[in-house]
Amino acid sequence: MKKITVEKKVLSENDKKAAAIRQALASHGVLSLNFVSSPGSGKTSLLEKTLASLVNDLKIALIAGDVQTENDADRLIAAGGEAVFPLVTGGSCHLDAKMISDILPKIDLDNLDLLIIENVGNLVCPASYDLGEDMKIALISTTEGHDKPLKYPGMFRRSSVLVINKTDLLGTSDFDVITVKKNALKINADLKFFETSCRTGDGLKQWFQWLSAEVKIKKNSN
Amino acid sequence: MKKITVEKKVLSENDKKAAAIRQALASHGVLSLNFVSSPGSGKTSLLEKTLASLVNDLKIALIAGDVQTENDADRLIAAGGEAVFPLVTGGSCHLDAKMISDILPKIDLDNLDLLIIENVGNLVCPASYDLGEDMKIALISTTEGHDKPLKYPGMFRRSSVLVINKTDLLGTSDFDVITVKKNALKINADLKFFETSCRTGDGLKQWFQWLSAEVKIKKNSN
Repeated sequence: MKKITVEKKVLSENDKKAAAIRQALASHGVLSLNFVSSPGSGKTSLLEKTLASLVNDLKIALIAGDVQTENDADRLIAAGGEAVFPLVTGGSCHLDAKMISDILPKIDLDNLDLLIIENVGNLVCPASYDLGEDMKIALISTTEGHDKPLKYPGMFRRSSVLVINKTDLLGTSDFDVITVKKNALKINADLKFFETSCRTGDGLKQWFQWLSAEVKIKKNSN
Repeated sequence: MKKITVEKKVLSENDKKAAAIRQALASHGVLSLNFVSSPGSGKTSLLEKTLASLVNDLKIALIAGDVQTENDADRLIAAGGEAVFPLVTGGSCHLDAKMISDILPKIDLDNLDLLIIENVGNLVCPASYDLGEDMKIALISTTEGHDKPLKYPGMFRRSSVLVINKTDLLGTSDFDVITVKKNALKINADLKFFETSCRTGDGLKQWFQWLSAEVKIKKNSN
């Protein structure tokens, strides 16, 4: 029981910090997205493509979380990211709002349209930590099995978008797009879907268009 | 600081229970393996193939952990598992020794050669929880990226074996077997490797042979 009490306290502290982050970003009309998935679903690959496509039109900052290494941050800088902040958790299985709060003062919010947070690859724990984002964007790759939304419901319940990635590998397993969508909608009827292949480029245009539109909506709501 | 103290206490309780499990299994000459990986790396597929191949020669019990659903347990029963125990964590991101202790009395250790525990799909948290196993068997699929041992070092450091699975998909990404082995050996120089495809059957024979030999070694050490 003691453990549960302490966890609740930690989460409540996290929620306060997340609310402050959300307010700071909203007051600047900055859209913020928290990318979550299993390790290797393609979060960094999708963000590389997103940067390459949108970096001339939008002012984007990225926080790249990992348990160890700054590999993802290095890839995002190479892809054109001008404001990339590596966040090495040193063992922790998720990002929390304090980690984001600590980085936020380094980001020029007056000159920002979009803040992207790439969470640790983990389909369980990051679901419980609000980072002050507008939306969680979940990824699932077509090699992971279409039952994952049912087996890890927390993450899919708290996400607004599900990107089904690596569609170029459809047919190499029994993964079925219709079934994964049906399973995901059982958990969260409001999920919006994209189907992408970062390898062939299929479906990326629709993703870029939606993302650009969401940035404008956020800017205009300010 | 308070949170750290409590976590230490929880881990110490876990270690005591894990030691008791280890002793109970050892006194019966039962080999116990804890399978760990990202979601969708193919733990259940490898175990389906393992059951189908060894169920006539070895007495095997399986504990199938998941955050939600008994899908994996159902698959293992369908694959010939006669003593399959579903373990739904209901949100928790890892199995712990208490969960295993609670199931152990239901297992007939006098008539058992091998206990297989399939952990929750999570490359971070299960690394910290000893379940009383002889070895952790980590899986990585060839679609996950060969940098994963460097990014999630805890799991690879604490595993004895790394199964590189889905080798039929080599060539569909830049995943390189030599590089993943090199990265894994940087973290843990004692890792033993297998390369398998549960789809084509490639490499499974070597895995079955090694596993049967390990069961015999454990039995004879009793």
